[in-house]
Amino acid sequence: MIYVDSLLCSPLETERPGNRPSLEEVAAGGLGAITVTVGFWEDATESMDQIVKWRNMAEDNADLVEIAYRAEDIRRIAESGRTAIILGFQNVSFLQGRLGYVELFARMGTRVGQLTYNIQNDLGGSCYEPHDSGLSRYGQYVVQEMNRCGMVIDLSHVGEQTTLDAIEASGDPVAITHANPASLAPHPRNKSDRVLDALRDRDGMIGVSVYRNLVGEYTTPQRWSELVAWTVDRVGIERVGIGTDLDQNGGFAYVEWMRQGRWAREIQYGASGPSKPGPTPPLDWFSTPAQFPNAEECLRERGFAEAEVAAIMGENWLRFYDTVFRQL
Amino acid sequence: MIYVDSLLCSPLETERPGNRPSLEEVAAGGLGAITVTVGFWEDATESMDQIVKWRNMAEDNADLVEIAYRAEDIRRIAESGRTAIILGFQNVSFLQGRLGYVELFARMGTRVGQLTYNIQNDLGGSCYEPHDSGLSRYGQYVVQEMNRCGMVIDLSHVGEQTTLDAIEASGDPVAITHANPASLAPHPRNKSDRVLDALRDRDGMIGVSVYRNLVGEYTTPQRWSELVAWTVDRVGIERVGIGTDLDQNGGFAYVEWMRQGRWAREIQYGASGPSKPGPTPPLDWFSTPAQFPNAEECLRERGFAEAEVAAIMGENWLRFYDTVFRQL
Repeated sequence: MIYVDSLLCSPLETERPGNRPSLEEVAAGGLGAITVTVGFWEDATESMDQIVKWRNMAEDNADLVEIAYRAEDIRRIAESGRTAIILGFQNVSFLQGRLGYVELFARMGTRVGQLTYNIQNDLGGSCYEPHDSGLSRYGQYVVQEMNRCGMVIDLSHVGEQTTLDAIEASGDPVAITHANPASLAPHPRNKSDRVLDALRDRDGMIGVSVYRNLVGEYTTPQRWSELVAWTVDRVGIERVGIGTDLDQNGGFAYVEWMRQGRWAREIQYGASGPSKPGPTPPLDWFSTPAQFPNAEECLRERGFAEAEVAAIMGENWLRFYDTVFRQL
Repeated sequence: MIYVDSLLCSPLETERPGNRPSLEEVAAGGLGAITVTVGFWEDATESMDQIVKWRNMAEDNADLVEIAYRAEDIRRIAESGRTAIILGFQNVSFLQGRLGYVELFARMGTRVGQLTYNIQNDLGGSCYEPHDSGLSRYGQYVVQEMNRCGMVIDLSHVGEQTTLDAIEASGDPVAITHANPASLAPHPRNKSDRVLDALRDRDGMIGVSVYRNLVGEYTTPQRWSELVAWTVDRVGIERVGIGTDLDQNGGFAYVEWMRQGRWAREIQYGASGPSKPGPTPPLDWFSTPAQFPNAEECLRERGFAEAEVAAIMGENWLRFYDTVFRQL
């Protein structure tokens, strides 16, 4: 069984070789592939600096990881007993307003781009925006270009209307790589039934998260597997995976950068709130990628059949990546 | 016979679709491949903007041209009756001091990089520098990284010592894509016998130019073919090609940008001089790529055998590109 995490938030590229323990946790979890977070707010050259860091890190730890540039790389790397790193960004600030940079960043290895992070940008509205503009004209072009270049359109932090517009605009299935159903765990970051139904109708994927701010009361393995089961009932067994949103070694400064970027002076709390500033403590049974087998176990206990467990743990994402990734 | 121009200076990417006549001249010349000038002084994002323009132009004129990303693309495109565009820069200002950008720009399609243009940079000295530093430590790393990434090291405008150092440092053969032998046509931009011998010993290539400022007295077809023949005698028949340095539709502003960039306020004359400011008039018999067949003719008249003519007109460059280009 190949495990896939469709959104790992850990800055594994930093402090090499100090990140080795975090990579070893990923290896201990038996992960075949992870989509990582290369950036949040970086402009084009800062994003390229980040890609270089990830490449250097992968080169320095080639016994554990390898960057997957093509869909076929993923299974090959996973089957070699290592972890395929899929380069993803939680924003498209790397475009700097240039449509043509979609192809350039795809050629550089970027395989996933979230249309907005926590604030509105030139493409559309975020989930925290009081008024969501919907997908802009530029956003429409970017969606088409991402389709052409085989870059996954990620809608996790994107506002409701922009999300619906993007699902509609995209020729390829889109992804919500890390969010939960808002019906069960109400939160601006979670997704309404309307969004989930639209995702299902276009054969998209959702990665159920274990981020404490997004799971509501579904904090234990037993309850969390309920969240998964409900999502499966809503969108179909072939459209659900796991996108942990785990952050292994970020620390306070990293969380601050993630939430605040350079767009505000007042403290921003992201999915958390003023009563819980700073990094959010993870769920104890899924606080590190090393605990991925706990997810497999609780899904089995929930009554999923073997093939269903394998589908949720990774096969669905692998099939999705096979579908969307396109070699230029 | 496949014709190759190892250095075309025309800004074919501008004014689309106004550049169509220039592309038609390239087609009329029967060129199978051209290495173009994507930039001179541009930083990373400006260089990326340039690459996007070339891509857009190629897409808009797909009946005439296609960008060659891989060595095997070149012959395929040439054999389809169109012209393969090889993306090259006359400087590596796109690196912005980052070693890691070599791979990123290679992945974006950059296949040729000249270590310096007309002024010293962080890699080494140019041919116009009063004191040539030689290849810097950073320059050494960049040469190695260009080797790894299959990017041609171009030394045409590079200073003597830096050129010798780079030939020595490079594991792959290097190229002087557009310059002439200084023994026959003395000019700081032309190459000494010492450089030509070092190039030969490492199996590098030189593209003989038709740029008026570089041909000295060898201006007629009969005399220019003497220049070629002398170069062949010096470095070997398999190491000589044609790198015209032609600029079809640049105009004054383009020449100004090329010579001046943003590095000076006083007027710079490049390979020309105060007595001949502005664009240099081309040789009448080779003023456009459409006249490439004139070169074939004068080489044949010079007495080169059929296979030798084909080698000089393009086969040598094709073999060189096959050797150096490496797919990441």
